[in-house]
Amino acid sequence: MTSVDPHSGRFITFEGIDGSGKSTQARRLADDLRARGQQVVLTREPGGSAGAEEIRTLVLTGDPGRWSAMTELLLFNAARRDHLEKTIQPALAAGHTVICDRFADSTRAYQGATRGDLRGTVDQLHALMIGLEPDLTFIIDMDPATALARGLARVGAEQRFEDMGLPLQQKVRSVFCDLARDHPERCVLIDGDRDPDSVAADIASRL
Amino acid sequence: MTSVDPHSGRFITFEGIDGSGKSTQARRLADDLRARGQQVVLTREPGGSAGAEEIRTLVLTGDPGRWSAMTELLLFNAARRDHLEKTIQPALAAGHTVICDRFADSTRAYQGATRGDLRGTVDQLHALMIGLEPDLTFIIDMDPATALARGLARVGAEQRFEDMGLPLQQKVRSVFCDLARDHPERCVLIDGDRDPDSVAADIASRL
Ligand SMILES: Nc1ncnc2c1ncn2[C@@H]1O[C@H](COP(=O)(O)OP(=O)(O)OP(=O)(O)O)[C@@H](O)[C@H]1O
Ligand SMILES: Nc1ncnc2c1ncn2[C@@H]1O[C@H](COP(=O)(O)OP(=O)(O)OP(=O)(O)O)[C@@H](O)[C@H]1O
Ligand SMILES: [Mg+2]
Ligand SMILES: [Mg+2]
Repeated sequence: MTSVDPHSGRFITFEGIDGSGKSTQARRLADDLRARGQQVVLTREPGGSAGAEEIRTLVLTGDPGRWSAMTELLLFNAARRDHLEKTIQPALAAGHTVICDRFADSTRAYQGATRGDLRGTVDQLHALMIGLEPDLTFIIDMDPATALARGLARVGAEQRFEDMGLPLQQKVRSVFCDLARDHPERCVLIDGDRDPDSVAADIASRL
Repeated sequence: MTSVDPHSGRFITFEGIDGSGKSTQARRLADDLRARGQQVVLTREPGGSAGAEEIRTLVLTGDPGRWSAMTELLLFNAARRDHLEKTIQPALAAGHTVICDRFADSTRAYQGATRGDLRGTVDQLHALMIGLEPDLTFIIDMDPATALARGLARVGAEQRFEDMGLPLQQKVRSVFCDLARDHPERCVLIDGDRDPDSVAADIASRL
């Protein structure tokens, strides 16, 4: 277990299935807190630092089946470690609020849905090499079919849903719900099937 | 802990400081066993598979200080995992003898010498994500100054020693000796300060 520097800033993450409104709500919360004078760093995964983006490019180039689930897990954790050290930790150490659009729970949910046998490994690797859990995680929950309909206008969204498939999104949703139940000390389940203002108001009230 | 498929082949590694004769002796042993009719796969780290080479290229390109020790550890383990799955495990499963020029003990020795505080993490990460230990490890031991003198003719050798420095090679040597002492069930310490034929004969007699 890696020791994590104590930090004075808050680390808030947004999680949920594709198209549930994570990026929309992360941006709204960042704007909101900035308007109230707080120093906010809005970041996202995958990516969030130059090195993390390069690792991701390596993972995504070439034959889709070239990396095994275990190798991919190591590469994604390398990207997350870089993101953590270059972007998240310095901001937290400076006392800023860090809002991150997807983090380790997304790995848990997608790996849990596709490779349930690796869930224990995912958690142990996180504990050993990342070590940081958010102070607060908003899991935006909604029906995948509704999220799909909502996102049809978005470039690339339809393709992504087709790649994953609705049944798989249902499984991902259920792992997210399990995570919320298993980690009530940091996870808040948010009903995402409302207009953006209502969702944002709900989130602001939970802070 | 990842379960490792039981294998019928033998997994033999060569370890030791820079210039101690690992590549020379690995090649000789491979030739020897092949001459006796065995199926041998001779491989090496870093590298040993296409994916592992690409990860290594990523690690080595750009600003030398761009990756932290922890991120580098994850990237090197990703490369090793690919090497394991694509090259080592299939050969062992087919009953072949795999001879590998450097493996996890090199990570342990060099990290142990430069970042002793990460030794526990190195071992835990290996147990979790690689899981395989060699059946037999030859650690070729000798004085670094002698290895340096021997290797002065080699292109790039002098530069490497200059980069690392003799004091650091001394530390690496001592971690290798600790590993041999701590894992007598698989490690054999070989005196490398003899002519190549004598070293090869010694190694062959230990098989
Ligand atoms: N509460 C909402 N009601 C209706 N539409 C919404 C709502 N929130 C976001 N949208 C729209 O739905 C689409 C998906 O939203 P957004 O990009 O925020 O989701 P996401 O969870 O970040 O998706 P992804 O997983 O693909 O990154 C966007 O077109 C966005 O404008
Ligand atoms: N027993 C020996 N006596 C003298 N010279 C040797 C002996 N074994 C190898 N050499 C020579 O020493 C040099 C280093 O040997 P070799 O490349 O096998 O070492 P190595 O441990 O693989 O080095 P590296 O760590 O750089 O990969 C080569 O030029 C080789 O020909
Ligand atoms: Mg998004
Ligand atoms: Mg060599």
